[in-house]
Amino acid sequence: MKESQVRQNKATRQWVIFAPERRRRPTDFMRPREGRTREPEHDPDCPFCPGNEGRLPDIIEEVRDARGRWLTRVVPNKFPALTPTGELARSREGIYLAMGGFGHHEVIVETPLHNLQPGQMSEEEAGGIVRTYLSRYRVLTEEEKTMMVIVFRNHGERAGTSLRHPHSQLIATGMVPHHVRWREEEAERYFDEWGRCVFCDILEFEERAGLRVVLANASFLVFVPYAAEVPFELWVMPRIHRADFGDMSEEEARDLASALRGALGILHRRLGDPDYNMVVNTSARYRAGEPRLHWYVQVRPRLLTAAGFEIGSGIGINPSLPEDDAAFLRGEGKQ
Amino acid sequence: MKESQVRQNKATRQWVIFAPERRRRPTDFMRPREGRTREPEHDPDCPFCPGNEGRLPDIIEEVRDARGRWLTRVVPNKFPALTPTGELARSREGIYLAMGGFGHHEVIVETPLHNLQPGQMSEEEAGGIVRTYLSRYRVLTEEEKTMMVIVFRNHGERAGTSLRHPHSQLIATGMVPHHVRWREEEAERYFDEWGRCVFCDILEFEERAGLRVVLANASFLVFVPYAAEVPFELWVMPRIHRADFGDMSEEEARDLASALRGALGILHRRLGDPDYNMVVNTSARYRAGEPRLHWYVQVRPRLLTAAGFEIGSGIGINPSLPEDDAAFLRGEGKQ
Repeated sequence: MKESQVRQNKATRQWVIFAPERRRRPTDFMRPREGRTREPEHDPDCPFCPGNEGRLPDIIEEVRDARGRWLTRVVPNKFPALTPTGELARSREGIYLAMGGFGHHEVIVETPLHNLQPGQMSEEEAGGIVRTYLSRYRVLTEEEKTMMVIVFRNHGERAGTSLRHPHSQLIATGMVPHHVRWREEEAERYFDEWGRCVFCDILEFEERAGLRVVLANASFLVFVPYAAEVPFELWVMPRIHRADFGDMSEEEARDLASALRGALGILHRRLGDPDYNMVVNTSARYRAGEPRLHWYVQVRPRLLTAAGFEIGSGIGINPSLPEDDAAFLRGEGKQ
Repeated sequence: MKESQVRQNKATRQWVIFAPERRRRPTDFMRPREGRTREPEHDPDCPFCPGNEGRLPDIIEEVRDARGRWLTRVVPNKFPALTPTGELARSREGIYLAMGGFGHHEVIVETPLHNLQPGQMSEEEAGGIVRTYLSRYRVLTEEEKTMMVIVFRNHGERAGTSLRHPHSQLIATGMVPHHVRWREEEAERYFDEWGRCVFCDILEFEERAGLRVVLANASFLVFVPYAAEVPFELWVMPRIHRADFGDMSEEEARDLASALRGALGILHRRLGDPDYNMVVNTSARYRAGEPRLHWYVQVRPRLLTAAGFEIGSGIGINPSLPEDDAAFLRGEGKQ
């Protein structure tokens, strides 16, 4: 019997169980070829495809290419989780606290093409997505009542989306979510102890070790984290230490587009277009200048289902080792 | 447009978004009749069915009825996440911490019948499950290296199980999971402020309000929590204030079996046998005598898929209000 190992996520101090007895081969995760539906380039029933603009509630913003054709489009979420009219004042309901549902919920249509995923885009097209992320992130962060902006991408039904047209979302909230506070507090505690940023230390260590690195460019390192909670989890981490996603330079934005395109392309090719969630982990608004924080992008493939133990303990059970996952994604060995 | 509301979980202080714009009718969650496979009473290929004992690695314990037939059986998990030979000593791997995978991972086969779910069992049969939970919980808690025992039940593929024979699991860990520490710290903070147990206050308030109550007996109240993270979430809460699940009396154990049987039966009937996870939230070992904690059982139907926002923020988006869910489960109105 192969022994399990338990590893600590350096950033959050959460433990993750690596259970090789529960291991599957990477190919067991791959979507069977017949299960994949080839999407058409244009779907007349899709609200995000060109020609169906009448079905959009509004177009908030567009990025256009040199010839004036739209690359990305920002539209309101038709079924918003939060709305700008909500009130942030807390109210009591017996022993409980509640507040109105203040926030913004936007959708970024990433391309006019119904079947073009970021991993298959040109640098210019992927660049359009990152420019749009930044533009909306900055606009929503400036809103007086915003405390936090979360940028995320759900790909595939197992990742919680049924809309197939490539898109991302932004939600601006009027409170700081617990997860964010927790990450910030842990990073601050580390800084107070070591006088260094925990994410800078992770990045430096991973680059030197090399074992878990999947790709790298001038501004970003993409790697499977040491205590990945799920198989093939990826962190896309900026080399430049900065708390706030919105502070990126144009050059960094180009490199981010290239890193995301590369990382998502590798997942697509090596695992047969897996479902995944992608999320930008950045500082809460009023910590944007905080020297002890460091933003990054997290990609979590949805290959397994979290069950009762994970729900009760918060401890992930990951059947595969990050080193093996990284080697497989780099195209080494057969496994 | 219906406004969202944001509510605070009193026990953890996490916020949950209630988004009626994203609402579905309860019947939209119901599994279509044709999608449900009727399981046979006996499956010759099932390792947990009588006659296939040769395929079990071991039988650790059995509960038998008055006539000597087995009601429940405890067996080792064939693909354990943690094993008793693991070492708890921490080791360094560069900047990281790791340890061996110490723990126990057991499966409780809940009935000889392949198709008998707890919600459809007799009181005696359901009682056998609770007796087995308690017996194994106590044995594993006594183990020198155990810090925490998590009892859980995964029902259906969306809840992370492919084994259809009714079963629960126990995992004993050598460390206290972050989720558990967090719940404990919040409960202690509440107690320090108010001089009372937060769970006792919740129970009392819910019983008086009545709105979210689904059922009650002498020892337990079953209700949809005020800030339920998912539709039709249920808390099964003991009236007697106790930190440790293992401290229950025989009478309480009987009432727990009855409450679980009732709650799971209602979910089954009203929602067409939904997939769900059930977990016993109890104290970590060395807080068992802690007067500020209070154990309870949490049932989380898996009707929706958590996506990027939930992963990044820890904030649930729940499309239905707990009061409406409770009324529906009580059989009131049509919705």
